[in-house]
Amino acid sequence: MLKTSVHKALGGDVPVHSTIMIQGWVRTRRDSKAGFSFVQIHDGSCFDALQVVVDQKIVNYETEIKRLTVGCAVAVSGELVESPGKKQQVELRAKSLSVIGWVDEPESYALAAKHHSFEHLRDNAHLRPRSNTFGAISRIRQKLAVAIHNYFDKKGFVWVNTPIITTSDCEGAGDLFRVSKLDFANRNLQKTDPINDQHDFFGSPTYLTVSGQLNLECYCLALSKVYTFGPAFRAENSNTSRHLAEFWMIEPEIAFADLSDNADLAENLLQTVARELMEHCQEDLDFFNKHHNQKLLKRLSGLVTSQFERIDYTHAIKILKDSNYSFEFEVAWGLDLQSEHERYLTEKYFRKPVIVMNYPKDIKAFYMRLNDDNKTVAAMDVLVPGMGEIIGGSQREERLAVLDARITNKDVRKELWWYRELRRYGTVPHSGFGLGFERFLGYVTGMDNVRDLIPFPRTPKNAAF
Amino acid sequence: MLKTSVHKALGGDVPVHSTIMIQGWVRTRRDSKAGFSFVQIHDGSCFDALQVVVDQKIVNYETEIKRLTVGCAVAVSGELVESPGKKQQVELRAKSLSVIGWVDEPESYALAAKHHSFEHLRDNAHLRPRSNTFGAISRIRQKLAVAIHNYFDKKGFVWVNTPIITTSDCEGAGDLFRVSKLDFANRNLQKTDPINDQHDFFGSPTYLTVSGQLNLECYCLALSKVYTFGPAFRAENSNTSRHLAEFWMIEPEIAFADLSDNADLAENLLQTVARELMEHCQEDLDFFNKHHNQKLLKRLSGLVTSQFERIDYTHAIKILKDSNYSFEFEVAWGLDLQSEHERYLTEKYFRKPVIVMNYPKDIKAFYMRLNDDNKTVAAMDVLVPGMGEIIGGSQREERLAVLDARITNKDVRKELWWYRELRRYGTVPHSGFGLGFERFLGYVTGMDNVRDLIPFPRTPKNAAF
Repeated sequence: MLKTSVHKALGGDVPVHSTIMIQGWVRTRRDSKAGFSFVQIHDGSCFDALQVVVDQKIVNYETEIKRLTVGCAVAVSGELVESPGKKQQVELRAKSLSVIGWVDEPESYALAAKHHSFEHLRDNAHLRPRSNTFGAISRIRQKLAVAIHNYFDKKGFVWVNTPIITTSDCEGAGDLFRVSKLDFANRNLQKTDPINDQHDFFGSPTYLTVSGQLNLECYCLALSKVYTFGPAFRAENSNTSRHLAEFWMIEPEIAFADLSDNADLAENLLQTVARELMEHCQEDLDFFNKHHNQKLLKRLSGLVTSQFERIDYTHAIKILKDSNYSFEFEVAWGLDLQSEHERYLTEKYFRKPVIVMNYPKDIKAFYMRLNDDNKTVAAMDVLVPGMGEIIGGSQREERLAVLDARITNKDVRKELWWYRELRRYGTVPHSGFGLGFERFLGYVTGMDNVRDLIPFPRTPKNAAF
Repeated sequence: MLKTSVHKALGGDVPVHSTIMIQGWVRTRRDSKAGFSFVQIHDGSCFDALQVVVDQKIVNYETEIKRLTVGCAVAVSGELVESPGKKQQVELRAKSLSVIGWVDEPESYALAAKHHSFEHLRDNAHLRPRSNTFGAISRIRQKLAVAIHNYFDKKGFVWVNTPIITTSDCEGAGDLFRVSKLDFANRNLQKTDPINDQHDFFGSPTYLTVSGQLNLECYCLALSKVYTFGPAFRAENSNTSRHLAEFWMIEPEIAFADLSDNADLAENLLQTVARELMEHCQEDLDFFNKHHNQKLLKRLSGLVTSQFERIDYTHAIKILKDSNYSFEFEVAWGLDLQSEHERYLTEKYFRKPVIVMNYPKDIKAFYMRLNDDNKTVAAMDVLVPGMGEIIGGSQREERLAVLDARITNKDVRKELWWYRELRRYGTVPHSGFGLGFERFLGYVTGMDNVRDLIPFPRTPKNAAF
């Protein structure tokens, strides 16, 4: 007998009339008056459940089958047959069904009923992957991650694990988490002994990384094409649907490459992996299009087929000013673009993805390359309809003297001795960008709240599970 | 003109007599008395450098070419021709060579000379990927990671990002890093205000994860086949070649699976990805076999072709006792196996990989499944020649009453309410294991020190870069 998955049984991999065994969990049970029951079994391998038909002649029909509730774990053996029903091509005619794990007090089971609010599911993050929505998110997350890794592998990029624990606090100290092994609890009792970072595990204050970029540049200037795909952290006290304290990020970095090469890479990456997803996750995407965001599939095909518009920041400001649209936030050269401005550009004006380039230097980070106008830097943001900014990146300042002029804080310059050395020894033009994995996942599923796009979200006052 | 990589130029992808452009860094320069120079250029795309022949007739020969030193960044255009030399099939006859980035004060360049100690390279972790050894490690790390992701993807596993920041301290509180946003520096000045975890970012004490397993089990009991591949942390004050405070770990977890299924998966995973590596990284592996560990290729083919031996812990103890070998550590039923014991079993006795199963319950974690003998648990360690333990895993205790009896601390039982609920609602036999990525990388490269197997190692008193 062939032990197989629901995905294989439904997908045509298993010939009709094979005898198979399926192991999974009950999604629904319906008893027919004609003397049999329909039990839907899922095992996470695909969106749909396999319909199992259990005849009342089966020995444990009254004692067990009729007691099955949502979430019970079962093993079913039987014959895979063509289904007379319209909803499925095949179904499993059970020869035996054994219960592996019951649901204890079904009325207490948080995932028992059919529909749950996202809040309820977040409170039960340990069980929510059993729901249709979170099963689908998990599978799309998987295929998206694999598509990203394979995209880079095929193009000769090397995945680099930049450090999670870092001594660098040069990018916004306020939003950093401290990492420590000092015994703070006892420290309260020993008030005469001040907290001394030199006695800490690493001998100096350490933090959780906000970006692997600076470390990644070291590898870029040796291996030419590199990327990170790992966790990053922000200790920002933002309780919004767009912020996580812990999230995953993809950051490619390419040598011998300017801002235009960087834009090419961003466009090609987004389009290639979105296309792969549309090929491999049709069933799951259809579900999101039907139940969560009816514009999803249209949005995805727009992403895949459009040639991204590329404009200068200065041009973007002009378009926004000329629009006569009443924005909440001021539009002026020198101010950053707000979400409403970005969405106007990509949704109303161009109606396709837009890459805005060359921002004023004063609103951008020290490592972005100064342009010849001495006013702007070679930064870029990729904006997409339905979301706004999805990618931020830049060409990096590879000229030591110009970089030093941009690092005004002497302590930071000292701390970044190794980053500066990259500019002394074989420096080359190089560029890169960051793509938030959960935000991208939100874009391809149409799900609005980033807390529903990572298995166990970490947000202010919440690190449950 | 075709811009291409050294890998493609050397690999036969580019036809001889093509005009190409290469961008990279100088590995060596040698001037011939016959009026030309040989410049070796690498760009990280493969182990070997491309030999460039520069004739003295080139306009900047005296002013620039003859000043080139190791590490200079250059762009070379010319014709790819068959090489009269024995060391390479093709070489590039330069039509022009322009310098993109000089090496400032070549005598100060840490990677200038040909051979460096690993200590020196660790002190220059920002530059070490430019060396032969660390370029090769980086590419093998890449191919190994991709092979692992693809292995799981093909088998229908879902990659799950378990949380990095966790409130759980139930697995060895002493070895945990604290994560906090409290202002400890100022706290010293305000001694009247004790540190209050409720005022911290997450509202409770949080730590860096030591393993994703408990969270992963939630996804396993919904999606059947899942794995993590992410960073994990140990705040252990161990200054050895085998310990990192921050490392990457692979943890698969499979439902409807016992210890024997778990052992099958471990064996198949190790063999499949090692085989892929031998196919795709021959050049880099040859380098390690030649320069770092002459037994490496033999070790790898042993791993790939052996059927792993499987024995019970009780049997292992008997073999060790009967060996009459003089071990440093005592051998007795109830004591854990030490590295010397593991290596005796796999290197001297069986001379192939060994999976030791069913250890005494008192030396293993609470979540491992109690066997019917009531004395042992369904734990397993995979031992390999040349290293000892490479994988540790177990079947998990899926029976709530038995689990509760093993969690003797009531606070832990309360904290793990969600983990316990998995056993109340559709519980099934399930199993999993952990594989340290850097240790595995050490095994396939023959490199001894785990600090050389991660880009920026974090160890006691060291979080530099």
